[in-house]
Amino acid sequence: MITMKGAAVSAKLKEQVEKGLETLTWVPKLTIIRVGENPDDISYEKGATKKLTSFGLEVESKVFPGDISDEAFKKEFAAINADASVDGILMLRPLPKQIKEQDIEKMIDPAKDLDGISPVNIAKVFSGDTSGFAPCTAEAVVCMLKMNDIALSGKRVAVVGRSMVVGRPLSMLLLHENATVTICHSRTASLPEVCREADILTACVGKAAMINHTYVKKDAVVIDVGINVDENGKLCGDVDFADLEGTASAATPVPGGVGGVTTAVLAQHLVRAARMKQEKNSNK
Amino acid sequence: MITMKGAAVSAKLKEQVEKGLETLTWVPKLTIIRVGENPDDISYEKGATKKLTSFGLEVESKVFPGDISDEAFKKEFAAINADASVDGILMLRPLPKQIKEQDIEKMIDPAKDLDGISPVNIAKVFSGDTSGFAPCTAEAVVCMLKMNDIALSGKRVAVVGRSMVVGRPLSMLLLHENATVTICHSRTASLPEVCREADILTACVGKAAMINHTYVKKDAVVIDVGINVDENGKLCGDVDFADLEGTASAATPVPGGVGGVTTAVLAQHLVRAARMKQEKNSNK
Repeated sequence: MITMKGAAVSAKLKEQVEKGLETLTWVPKLTIIRVGENPDDISYEKGATKKLTSFGLEVESKVFPGDISDEAFKKEFAAINADASVDGILMLRPLPKQIKEQDIEKMIDPAKDLDGISPVNIAKVFSGDTSGFAPCTAEAVVCMLKMNDIALSGKRVAVVGRSMVVGRPLSMLLLHENATVTICHSRTASLPEVCREADILTACVGKAAMINHTYVKKDAVVIDVGINVDENGKLCGDVDFADLEGTASAATPVPGGVGGVTTAVLAQHLVRAARMKQEKNSNK
Repeated sequence: MITMKGAAVSAKLKEQVEKGLETLTWVPKLTIIRVGENPDDISYEKGATKKLTSFGLEVESKVFPGDISDEAFKKEFAAINADASVDGILMLRPLPKQIKEQDIEKMIDPAKDLDGISPVNIAKVFSGDTSGFAPCTAEAVVCMLKMNDIALSGKRVAVVGRSMVVGRPLSMLLLHENATVTICHSRTASLPEVCREADILTACVGKAAMINHTYVKKDAVVIDVGINVDENGKLCGDVDFADLEGTASAATPVPGGVGGVTTAVLAQHLVRAARMKQEKNSNK
């Protein structure tokens, strides 16, 4: 079984980002918005900052107290959203309950919405319009497959999980690559059987090591999008990686798989946002 | 094999519409916008007008010449869109090529967009937010299944066709009903085999009588969304209905199936749009 590492894909994306930077007259800036001190958010923020900085991009964090009011947060958000020096926004979610996240999704400038949370970008992902931004994790899965030369057209793909962050947009991105996509979820009957129909299995359920070899067709490719902590406090995916040996032809590890590609895609989105802005300004 | 007729479903929707009308202080009005003299458009316009009028609703048609300029059409469209006496809009598509349809999708007031073409409504369908409007045909398929007491949760459904008018939104509506959905299309390998996995098969491909018994699992339910004209100039669906006898447990005919339900759903959407407007006005 081939271990598909994120680092190799990330390195290719870095090359693309560097080429993109050459066409820009400034260094694009990402603003990460964090509310509260959720350790998962802080960890993602650190990882993204490190990756984007290493790609030659600028990153700033705007951190707000976990008990900030809906009104106060919206005011702060509106200022960042309108700030011409901010090329892209990554808002760590979920937000605390007092803030109406749906309102923020509507507020965010689609041209700065690097993780595809605005209705405009969601509709574009759904309709196959590539001028918008798809959620980074969903796109990272497709990058992982394509950059490992895994054919998608006409292939059967099972997407296990139907979240708006991964499962649903991923299904659409794979559909646009002409895969035959089956969207599975908690209510799917005979899940292992359904998964065994797939040439490519993508797991995004959020349950530690749930997917083992009984879910995998011989020689299928398995992409693990899960980030969980197991009983021993160790980071692990949705897939029992070791158990796939002898069944899957290739699989991604956790850590070391899709996670790092996600932030590389974020970097790519930032450069694309800046390029679109530059083009728009030059047409004025 | 049970023949699932549209008329019975349409009658149930009519009851719901009549109940809805009782809560309204005015008779809601649909404006149908047609550009040019496409016979398919005229036929749909006639059917919708007849159905909505028989449901006690008001319908007006605004017809523009097929060679109207993009600028002139947008001006006309903006006026209809802003007209307070118009509760819902159905724009017959596709529009002639000189008109940028994408711009109209962005322009249309989501609250009047009864056939779900605006990004706001598309994003809602994708995310499972039922406060918006799904494309009527896609919703008609779900109505047909639910009102015939066909369970969807945990069932395998194959959606053959991935258009933005039917296949893709239908996949999402079925997913929100907890079905396990496989989206098939022209690039799907071994299509009959994939379709035979399904408890429910929905055909929306636009190829006359393409789906025969070899695509259907024993006792599966088949919904035919196709409206085609066969070699003899006769209206027919995507499914070879007669050929399913002995294989499918139930199927919808064409004509007499989903088509009439689509306009009944349109009527339901119009009443819902008017109710939302009434509530909004009373909160002012």
